[in-house]
Amino acid sequence: MSTLSPTVRTTGTRETHRAVVERGRLLELLDDALVAHFGAVVTRDGVTHPVVLPMAFAFDPDGPDADGTLYLHGSTGAGWLRSALATDVCVTITELDGLVAARSGMEHSMNYRCAVIIGRARAVDDPAERARSLDLIVDHMIPGRAATLRAPTRKELAATAVLALPLREASMKERAGGPADEDEDIAAGTWGGHIPLRRVALAPVSSPDSHTDVPADVIARAAALGDLDTAGLG
Amino acid sequence: MSTLSPTVRTTGTRETHRAVVERGRLLELLDDALVAHFGAVVTRDGVTHPVVLPMAFAFDPDGPDADGTLYLHGSTGAGWLRSALATDVCVTITELDGLVAARSGMEHSMNYRCAVIIGRARAVDDPAERARSLDLIVDHMIPGRAATLRAPTRKELAATAVLALPLREASMKERAGGPADEDEDIAAGTWGGHIPLRRVALAPVSSPDSHTDVPADVIARAAALGDLDTAGLG
Repeated sequence: MSTLSPTVRTTGTRETHRAVVERGRLLELLDDALVAHFGAVVTRDGVTHPVVLPMAFAFDPDGPDADGTLYLHGSTGAGWLRSALATDVCVTITELDGLVAARSGMEHSMNYRCAVIIGRARAVDDPAERARSLDLIVDHMIPGRAATLRAPTRKELAATAVLALPLREASMKERAGGPADEDEDIAAGTWGGHIPLRRVALAPVSSPDSHTDVPADVIARAAALGDLDTAGLG
Repeated sequence: MSTLSPTVRTTGTRETHRAVVERGRLLELLDDALVAHFGAVVTRDGVTHPVVLPMAFAFDPDGPDADGTLYLHGSTGAGWLRSALATDVCVTITELDGLVAARSGMEHSMNYRCAVIIGRARAVDDPAERARSLDLIVDHMIPGRAATLRAPTRKELAATAVLALPLREASMKERAGGPADEDEDIAAGTWGGHIPLRRVALAPVSSPDSHTDVPADVIARAAALGDLDTAGLG
Protein backbone atom coordinates (compact mmCIF):
# COMPACT_ATOMS: atom_id res chain seq x y z
CA MET A 1 0.00 0.00 0.00
CA SER A 2 1.57 3.28 -1.05
CA THR A 3 -1.28 5.60 -0.10
CA LEU A 4 -3.01 6.01 3.23
CA SER A 5 -6.60 4.96 3.82
CA PRO A 6 -7.88 7.47 6.34
CA THR A 7 -11.50 7.25 7.46
CA VAL A 8 -13.82 10.04 8.57
CA ARG A 9 -12.81 9.52 12.18
CA THR A 10 -9.08 9.89 11.56
CA THR A 11 -9.40 12.91 9.31
CA GLY A 12 -12.30 15.10 10.30
CA THR A 13 -13.42 17.85 7.99
CA ARG A 14 -11.03 20.69 8.71
CA GLU A 15 -7.88 21.82 6.91
CA THR A 16 -8.14 19.05 4.36
CA HIS A 17 -5.41 20.79 2.33
CA ARG A 18 -2.95 19.68 5.02
CA ALA A 19 -3.77 16.02 4.57
CA VAL A 20 -0.88 13.81 3.48
CA VAL A 21 -1.83 10.77 1.42
CA GLU A 22 1.60 9.28 0.72
CA ARG A 23 2.30 6.41 3.02
CA GLY A 24 6.04 7.07 2.73
CA ARG A 25 5.65 10.42 4.53
CA LEU A 26 3.92 8.69 7.42
CA LEU A 27 6.66 6.07 7.67
CA GLU A 28 9.29 8.86 7.75
CA LEU A 29 7.39 10.50 10.61
CA LEU A 30 7.21 7.21 12.52
CA ASP A 31 10.96 6.93 12.04
CA ASP A 32 11.72 10.50 13.20
CA ALA A 33 9.37 10.68 16.19
CA LEU A 34 10.36 9.27 19.57
CA VAL A 35 7.15 9.73 21.57
CA ALA A 36 3.57 8.70 20.81
CA HIS A 37 0.55 10.05 22.67
CA PHE A 38 -1.72 7.13 23.41
CA GLY A 39 -5.40 7.85 24.07
CA ALA A 40 -7.84 5.44 25.67
CA VAL A 41 -11.38 5.77 26.99
CA VAL A 42 -11.65 4.99 30.68
CA THR A 43 -14.85 4.51 32.66
CA ARG A 44 -14.48 4.81 36.42
CA ASP A 45 -17.37 5.02 38.87
CA GLY A 46 -19.74 5.44 35.94
CA VAL A 47 -17.88 8.46 34.54
CA THR A 48 -16.28 8.13 31.11
CA HIS A 49 -13.24 10.20 30.25
CA PRO A 50 -10.24 10.00 27.94
CA VAL A 51 -6.71 9.42 29.20
CA VAL A 52 -3.76 10.52 27.08
CA LEU A 53 -0.26 9.31 27.98
CA PRO A 54 3.13 9.66 26.29
CA MET A 55 4.79 6.39 25.36
CA ALA A 56 7.79 4.97 23.57
CA PHE A 57 6.82 3.06 20.46
CA ALA A 58 8.12 1.22 17.43
CA PHE A 59 6.67 0.45 14.03
CA ASP A 60 7.17 -2.86 12.26
CA PRO A 61 6.34 -2.62 8.54
CA ASP A 62 6.52 -6.42 8.45
CA GLY A 63 4.35 -6.89 11.54
CA PRO A 64 1.47 -9.38 11.45
CA ASP A 65 -1.25 -6.72 11.07
CA ALA A 66 -2.52 -5.40 7.78
CA ASP A 67 -0.43 -2.38 6.70
CA GLY A 68 2.14 -3.00 9.45
CA THR A 69 2.04 -2.97 13.24
CA LEU A 70 2.64 -0.18 15.74
CA TYR A 71 3.91 -1.47 19.10
CA LEU A 72 3.60 0.22 22.50
CA HIS A 73 4.46 -1.21 25.87
CA GLY A 74 3.55 -0.53 29.45
CA SER A 75 3.36 -2.12 32.87
CA THR A 76 0.83 -4.89 33.38
CA GLY A 77 -0.06 -3.05 36.60
CA ALA A 78 -1.46 -0.01 34.81
CA GLY A 79 -5.26 0.02 34.92
CA TRP A 80 -5.78 2.11 31.79
CA LEU A 81 -3.88 -0.51 29.80
CA ARG A 82 -6.65 -3.00 30.43
CA SER A 83 -9.26 -0.34 29.57
CA ALA A 84 -7.36 0.19 26.34
CA LEU A 85 -8.29 -3.28 25.13
CA ALA A 86 -12.02 -2.77 25.73
CA THR A 87 -12.61 0.06 23.24
CA ASP A 88 -10.85 1.55 20.25
CA VAL A 89 -7.76 3.61 20.97
CA CYS A 90 -6.11 6.58 19.30
CA VAL A 91 -2.37 6.97 18.91
CA THR A 92 -1.17 10.41 17.82
CA ILE A 93 2.43 11.05 16.85
CA THR A 94 3.47 14.66 16.44
CA GLU A 95 6.73 16.32 15.51
CA LEU A 96 6.91 20.09 15.95
CA ASP A 97 8.91 21.70 13.13
CA GLY A 98 8.45 25.42 13.70
CA LEU A 99 6.52 28.46 14.88
CA VAL A 100 4.62 30.46 12.26
CA ALA A 101 4.48 34.20 12.94
CA ALA A 102 1.69 35.61 10.78
CA ARG A 103 0.55 39.23 10.33
CA SER A 104 -2.61 38.53 12.36
CA GLY A 105 -3.11 36.60 15.56
CA MET A 106 -5.59 34.17 14.03
CA GLU A 107 -3.15 33.10 11.30
CA HIS A 108 -0.47 32.23 13.83
CA SER A 109 0.25 28.56 13.58
CA MET A 110 2.89 25.89 13.95
CA ASN A 111 4.72 23.80 11.41
CA TYR A 112 4.31 20.16 12.28
CA ARG A 113 3.84 16.61 11.07
CA CYS A 114 1.12 14.63 12.82
CA ALA A 115 -0.19 11.09 12.37
CA VAL A 116 -3.45 9.91 13.92
CA ILE A 117 -4.05 6.16 14.11
CA ILE A 118 -7.33 4.80 15.44
CA GLY A 119 -8.21 1.17 15.93
CA ARG A 120 -8.60 -1.76 18.25
CA ALA A 121 -5.36 -2.62 20.04
CA ARG A 122 -4.32 -6.22 20.48
CA ALA A 123 -2.38 -7.58 23.46
CA VAL A 124 0.75 -9.25 22.16
CA ASP A 125 0.94 -12.70 23.76
CA ASP A 126 3.03 -14.71 21.31
CA PRO A 127 6.53 -15.00 22.86
CA ALA A 128 8.38 -14.49 19.57
CA GLU A 129 6.33 -11.40 18.66
CA ARG A 130 6.77 -10.02 22.19
CA ALA A 131 10.55 -10.45 22.07
CA ARG A 132 10.77 -8.90 18.62
CA SER A 133 8.52 -5.93 19.51
CA LEU A 134 10.50 -5.14 22.67
CA ASP A 135 13.75 -5.20 20.69
CA LEU A 136 12.16 -2.91 18.10
CA ILE A 137 11.21 -0.39 20.81
CA VAL A 138 14.81 -0.32 22.12
CA ASP A 139 16.21 -0.05 18.60
CA HIS A 140 13.79 2.74 17.72
CA MET A 141 15.40 4.77 20.51
CA ILE A 142 18.97 3.70 19.75
CA PRO A 143 19.36 1.69 16.53
CA GLY A 144 21.46 -1.42 17.04
CA ARG A 145 21.38 -1.41 20.83
CA ALA A 146 19.03 -4.36 21.41
CA ALA A 147 21.59 -6.81 19.99
CA THR A 148 24.17 -5.64 22.57
CA LEU A 149 21.95 -6.38 25.59
CA ARG A 150 21.03 -9.52 27.54
CA ALA A 151 17.62 -11.06 26.87
CA PRO A 152 14.72 -10.02 29.14
CA THR A 153 14.12 -12.27 32.13
CA ARG A 154 10.92 -14.22 32.62
CA LYS A 155 10.03 -11.87 35.49
CA GLU A 156 10.58 -8.76 33.36
CA LEU A 157 8.46 -10.18 30.58
CA ALA A 158 5.67 -11.08 33.01
CA ALA A 159 5.54 -7.47 34.24
CA THR A 160 5.32 -5.99 30.75
CA ALA A 161 2.29 -5.62 28.51
CA VAL A 162 2.81 -5.04 24.79
CA LEU A 163 0.03 -3.59 22.69
CA ALA A 164 -0.14 -3.85 18.90
CA LEU A 165 -2.16 -1.47 16.74
CA PRO A 166 -2.57 -1.98 12.99
CA LEU A 167 -1.62 1.01 10.86
CA ARG A 168 -4.72 0.44 8.74
CA GLU A 169 -6.87 3.39 9.86
CA ALA A 170 -4.31 6.18 9.77
CA SER A 171 -4.17 9.75 8.57
CA MET A 172 -1.45 12.34 8.49
CA LYS A 173 -1.39 16.12 8.36
CA GLU A 174 1.56 18.35 7.69
CA ARG A 175 2.22 22.08 7.69
CA ALA A 176 5.43 23.69 6.50
CA GLY A 177 6.72 27.14 5.55
CA GLY A 178 5.57 30.65 6.29
CA PRO A 179 2.20 32.17 7.15
CA ALA A 180 -0.85 32.32 4.85
CA ASP A 181 -1.89 35.92 5.39
CA GLU A 182 -4.65 38.06 3.94
CA ASP A 183 -3.54 40.44 1.18
CA GLU A 184 -4.44 43.53 3.21
CA ASP A 185 -2.37 42.29 6.17
CA ILE A 186 0.64 41.78 3.90
CA ALA A 187 0.11 45.22 2.38
CA ALA A 188 0.04 46.77 5.85
CA GLY A 189 3.74 45.95 6.14
CA THR A 190 3.80 43.81 9.28
CA TRP A 191 6.63 41.26 9.29
CA GLY A 192 5.64 37.65 8.64
CA GLY A 193 7.74 34.52 8.70
CA HIS A 194 8.57 31.46 10.71
CA ILE A 195 11.07 30.09 13.22
CA PRO A 196 12.23 26.55 12.29
CA LEU A 197 12.64 24.23 15.29
CA ARG A 198 14.84 21.16 15.55
CA ARG A 199 15.51 18.49 18.15
CA VAL A 200 19.20 17.99 18.83
CA ALA A 201 21.28 15.86 21.17
CA LEU A 202 23.95 16.84 23.64
CA ALA A 203 26.90 14.48 24.00
CA PRO A 204 25.99 11.12 25.63
CA VAL A 205 26.44 11.10 29.42
CA SER A 206 27.95 7.97 30.97
CA SER A 207 26.51 6.80 34.27
CA PRO A 208 28.98 7.15 37.16
CA ASP A 209 29.04 3.35 37.52
CA SER A 210 29.79 2.87 33.81
CA HIS A 211 33.45 2.11 33.20
CA THR A 212 33.55 1.40 29.47
CA ASP A 213 33.67 3.75 26.50
CA VAL A 214 30.41 5.07 25.08
CA PRO A 215 29.43 2.42 22.52
CA ALA A 216 29.36 3.19 18.82
CA ASP A 217 25.56 2.83 18.52
CA VAL A 218 24.99 5.48 21.20
CA ILE A 219 27.54 7.86 19.63
CA ALA A 220 25.95 7.31 16.21
CA ARG A 221 22.46 8.00 17.58
CA ALA A 222 23.51 11.28 19.19
CA ALA A 223 25.28 12.30 15.98
CA ALA A 224 22.26 11.41 13.84
CA LEU A 225 20.06 13.58 16.07
CA GLY A 226 22.50 16.45 15.58
CA ASP A 227 25.07 16.60 18.36
CA LEU A 228 25.09 20.12 19.80
CA ASP A 229 28.35 19.54 21.64
CA THR A 230 30.27 19.09 18.42
CA ALA A 231 29.44 22.75 17.77
CA GLY A 232 30.69 23.81 21.20
CA LEU A 233 27.21 24.64 22.46
CA GLY A 234 26.82 21.82 25.00
CA MET B 1 -1.97 26.69 45.83
CA SER B 2 1.65 25.55 45.89
CA THR B 3 1.08 21.81 45.60
CA LEU B 4 -0.86 19.85 43.00
CA SER B 5 -4.08 18.03 43.74
CA PRO B 6 -3.99 15.01 41.49
CA THR B 7 -6.83 12.51 41.67
CA VAL B 8 -6.75 8.79 41.01
CA ARG B 9 -7.66 9.35 37.37
CA THR B 10 -4.81 11.76 36.69
CA THR B 11 -2.18 9.71 38.48
CA GLY B 12 -2.81 6.01 38.17
CA THR B 13 -0.89 3.63 40.32
CA ARG B 14 2.39 3.15 38.45
CA GLU B 15 5.79 4.77 38.95
CA THR B 16 4.55 6.91 41.81
CA HIS B 17 8.19 7.86 42.53
CA ARG B 18 8.11 9.96 39.37
CA ALA B 19 5.18 12.05 40.59
CA VAL B 20 5.86 15.77 40.97
CA VAL B 21 3.83 17.53 43.62
CA GLU B 22 5.23 21.07 43.38
CA ARG B 23 2.91 23.27 41.39
CA GLY B 24 5.87 25.43 40.34
CA ARG B 25 7.35 22.56 38.32
CA LEU B 26 4.07 22.18 36.44
CA LEU B 27 3.94 25.89 35.65
CA GLU B 28 7.52 25.73 34.32
CA LEU B 29 6.50 22.86 32.04
CA LEU B 30 3.47 24.79 30.78
CA ASP B 31 5.84 27.66 30.02
CA ASP B 32 8.43 25.49 28.20
CA ALA B 33 6.05 23.33 26.17
CA LEU B 34 4.59 24.53 22.87
CA VAL B 35 2.19 21.72 22.01
CA ALA B 36 -0.57 20.08 24.04
CA HIS B 37 -2.18 16.77 23.11
CA PHE B 38 -5.91 17.16 23.58
CA GLY B 39 -8.00 14.03 24.08
CA ALA B 40 -11.76 13.81 23.74
CA VAL B 41 -14.24 10.94 23.62
CA VAL B 42 -16.18 10.80 20.37
CA THR B 43 -19.21 8.64 19.63
CA ARG B 44 -20.01 8.16 15.97
CA ASP B 45 -22.52 5.65 14.61
CA GLY B 46 -22.77 4.13 18.08
CA VAL B 47 -19.02 3.47 18.34
CA THR B 48 -17.11 5.29 21.07
CA HIS B 49 -13.42 6.07 20.56
CA PRO B 50 -10.88 8.61 21.75
CA VAL B 51 -9.44 11.28 19.51
CA VAL B 52 -6.08 12.84 20.36
CA LEU B 53 -4.97 15.98 18.52
CA PRO B 54 -1.99 18.33 18.95
CA MET B 55 -2.89 21.93 19.71
CA ALA B 56 -1.36 25.25 20.59
CA PHE B 57 -2.27 26.36 24.08
CA ALA B 58 -1.71 28.99 26.74
CA PHE B 59 -2.04 29.01 30.50
CA ASP B 60 -3.44 31.95 32.44
CA PRO B 61 -2.56 31.71 36.14
CA ASP B 62 -5.05 34.54 36.72
CA GLY B 63 -7.80 32.94 34.61
CA PRO B 64 -11.34 32.71 35.98
CA ASP B 65 -11.11 29.01 36.89
CA ALA B 66 -9.93 27.63 40.19
CA ASP B 67 -6.12 27.12 40.07
CA GLY B 68 -5.82 28.95 36.74
CA THR B 69 -7.12 28.33 33.24
CA LEU B 70 -5.62 26.43 30.32
CA TYR B 71 -6.83 27.73 26.95
CA LEU B 72 -6.98 25.86 23.65
CA HIS B 73 -8.53 27.00 20.41
CA GLY B 74 -9.82 25.38 17.26
CA SER B 75 -12.16 25.89 14.37
CA THR B 76 -15.88 26.03 15.10
CA GLY B 77 -16.25 23.68 12.14
CA ALA B 78 -14.43 20.81 13.86
CA GLY B 79 -16.89 18.15 14.98
CA TRP B 80 -14.78 16.74 17.80
CA LEU B 81 -14.70 20.19 19.39
CA ARG B 82 -18.41 19.93 20.07
CA SER B 83 -17.97 16.38 21.37
CA ALA B 84 -15.32 17.77 23.67
CA LEU B 85 -17.92 19.74 25.61
CA ALA B 86 -20.15 16.71 26.19
CA THR B 87 -17.76 14.66 28.33
CA ASP B 88 -14.59 15.23 30.33
CA VAL B 89 -11.44 15.82 28.34
CA CYS B 90 -7.76 15.09 28.95
CA VAL B 91 -4.95 17.45 28.02
CA THR B 92 -1.44 15.99 28.16
CA ILE B 93 1.64 18.16 27.79
CA THR B 94 4.94 16.37 27.33
CA GLU B 95 8.49 17.58 26.87
CA LEU B 96 11.07 14.99 25.87
CA ASP B 97 14.39 15.62 27.63
CA GLY B 98 16.48 12.60 26.73
CA LEU B 99 16.96 8.95 25.85
CA VAL B 100 18.00 6.57 28.64
CA ALA B 101 20.27 3.72 27.53
CA ALA B 102 20.17 1.09 30.26
CA ARG B 103 22.08 -2.20 30.56
CA SER B 104 18.92 -4.17 29.80
CA GLY B 105 16.19 -3.60 27.25
CA MET B 106 13.43 -3.36 29.84
CA GLU B 107 15.16 -0.54 31.73
CA HIS B 108 15.45 1.58 28.61
CA SER B 109 13.44 4.71 29.13
CA MET B 110 13.17 8.37 28.27
CA ASN B 111 13.74 11.47 30.31
CA TYR B 112 10.66 13.64 30.15
CA ARG B 113 8.31 15.99 31.92
CA CYS B 114 4.60 15.28 31.48
CA ALA B 115 1.46 16.94 32.83
CA VAL B 116 -1.96 15.31 32.62
CA ILE B 117 -5.00 17.51 33.17
CA ILE B 118 -8.50 16.03 33.19
CA GLY B 119 -11.74 17.94 33.54
CA ARG B 120 -14.77 19.41 31.91
CA ALA B 121 -13.88 22.01 29.30
CA ARG B 122 -15.85 25.21 29.04
CA ALA B 123 -16.54 27.10 25.80
CA VAL B 124 -15.24 30.64 26.23
CA ASP B 125 -18.05 32.99 25.16
CA ASP B 126 -17.27 36.20 27.03
CA PRO B 127 -15.75 38.61 24.46
CA ALA B 128 -13.12 39.98 26.85
CA GLU B 129 -11.99 36.51 27.94
CA ARG B 130 -11.93 35.34 24.31
CA ALA B 131 -9.78 38.27 23.22
CA ARG B 132 -7.41 37.81 26.16
CA SER B 133 -7.10 34.05 25.67
CA LEU B 134 -6.33 34.40 21.94
CA ASP B 135 -3.63 36.97 22.72
CA LEU B 136 -2.19 34.60 25.35
CA ILE B 137 -1.98 31.78 22.79
CA VAL B 138 -0.04 34.04 20.36
CA ASP B 139 2.21 35.31 23.15
CA HIS B 140 2.88 31.79 24.38
CA MET B 141 4.39 31.07 20.95
CA ILE B 142 6.21 34.40 20.63
CA PRO B 143 6.13 36.54 23.79
CA GLY B 144 5.15 40.13 23.05
CA ARG B 145 3.86 39.53 19.53
CA ALA B 146 0.12 39.91 20.19
CA ALA B 147 0.54 43.62 21.01
CA THR B 148 2.14 44.22 17.58
CA LEU B 149 -0.80 42.79 15.60
CA ARG B 150 -4.20 44.11 14.53
CA ALA B 151 -7.23 42.93 16.50
CA PRO B 152 -9.13 39.87 15.20
CA THR B 153 -12.05 40.64 12.91
CA ARG B 154 -15.62 39.73 13.79
CA LYS B 155 -15.52 37.05 11.09
CA GLU B 156 -12.31 35.53 12.44
CA LEU B 157 -13.73 35.46 15.95
CA ALA B 158 -16.95 33.81 14.73
CA ALA B 159 -14.94 30.99 13.11
CA THR B 160 -12.90 30.29 16.24
CA ALA B 161 -13.85 28.25 19.27
CA VAL B 162 -11.89 28.72 22.49
CA LEU B 163 -11.96 26.05 25.18
CA ALA B 164 -11.01 26.66 28.82
CA LEU B 165 -9.93 23.87 31.16
CA PRO B 166 -9.31 24.47 34.86
CA LEU B 167 -5.93 23.32 36.13
CA ARG B 168 -7.60 21.84 39.20
CA GLU B 169 -7.32 18.13 38.44
CA ALA B 170 -3.71 17.94 37.31
CA SER B 171 -0.76 15.67 37.88
CA MET B 172 2.80 15.73 36.71
CA LYS B 173 5.51 13.12 36.28
CA GLU B 174 9.16 13.67 35.60
CA ARG B 175 12.17 11.48 34.86
CA ALA B 176 15.74 12.73 34.69
CA GLY B 177 19.28 11.31 34.68
CA GLY B 178 20.72 7.92 33.87
CA PRO B 179 19.31 4.39 33.98
CA ALA B 180 18.23 2.50 37.10
CA ASP B 181 19.87 -0.86 36.44
CA GLU B 182 20.06 -4.08 38.40
CA ASP B 183 23.34 -4.61 40.27
CA GLU B 184 24.22 -7.70 38.25
CA ASP B 185 23.72 -5.82 34.98
CA ILE B 186 26.04 -3.05 36.17
CA ALA B 187 28.60 -5.64 37.28
CA ALA B 188 28.46 -7.26 33.83
CA GLY B 189 30.17 -4.15 32.48
CA THR B 190 27.69 -3.03 29.82
CA TRP B 191 27.74 0.73 29.23
CA GLY B 192 24.82 2.69 30.68
CA GLY B 193 23.99 6.36 30.36
CA HIS B 194 21.74 8.82 28.62
CA ILE B 195 21.56 11.17 25.64
CA PRO B 196 20.16 14.60 26.62
CA LEU B 197 17.83 16.11 24.01
CA ARG B 198 17.03 19.78 23.47
CA ARG B 199 14.74 21.76 21.21
CA VAL B 200 16.54 24.58 19.42
CA ALA B 201 15.61 27.19 16.84
CA LEU B 202 17.20 28.00 13.52
CA ALA B 203 17.34 31.67 12.54
CA PRO B 204 13.90 33.20 11.79
CA VAL B 205 12.92 32.98 8.10
CA SER B 206 11.21 36.05 6.59
CA SER B 207 8.37 35.41 4.13
CA PRO B 208 9.27 36.47 0.56
CA ASP B 209 6.54 39.15 0.74
CA SER B 210 7.92 40.51 4.02
CA HIS B 211 9.96 43.70 3.49
CA THR B 212 10.76 44.77 7.05
CA ASP B 213 13.45 43.60 9.46
CA VAL B 214 12.73 40.60 11.67
CA PRO B 215 11.10 42.15 14.76
CA ALA B 216 12.81 42.08 18.14
CA ASP B 217 10.23 39.76 19.71
CA VAL B 218 10.81 37.09 17.03
CA ILE B 219 14.60 37.40 17.33
CA ALA B 220 14.34 37.17 21.11
CA ARG B 221 12.13 34.07 20.89
CA ALA B 222 14.53 32.25 18.58
CA ALA B 223 17.43 33.20 20.85
CA ALA B 224 15.59 32.04 23.96
CA LEU B 225 14.94 28.67 22.32
CA GLY B 226 18.68 28.43 21.57
CA ASP B 227 19.48 29.68 18.09
CA LEU B 228 21.44 27.00 16.26
CA ASP B 229 22.54 29.40 13.54
CA THR B 230 24.55 31.48 15.97
CA ALA B 231 26.72 28.38 16.35
CA GLY B 232 27.12 27.96 12.60
CA LEU B 233 25.01 24.81 12.50
CA GLY B 234 21.95 26.16 10.69
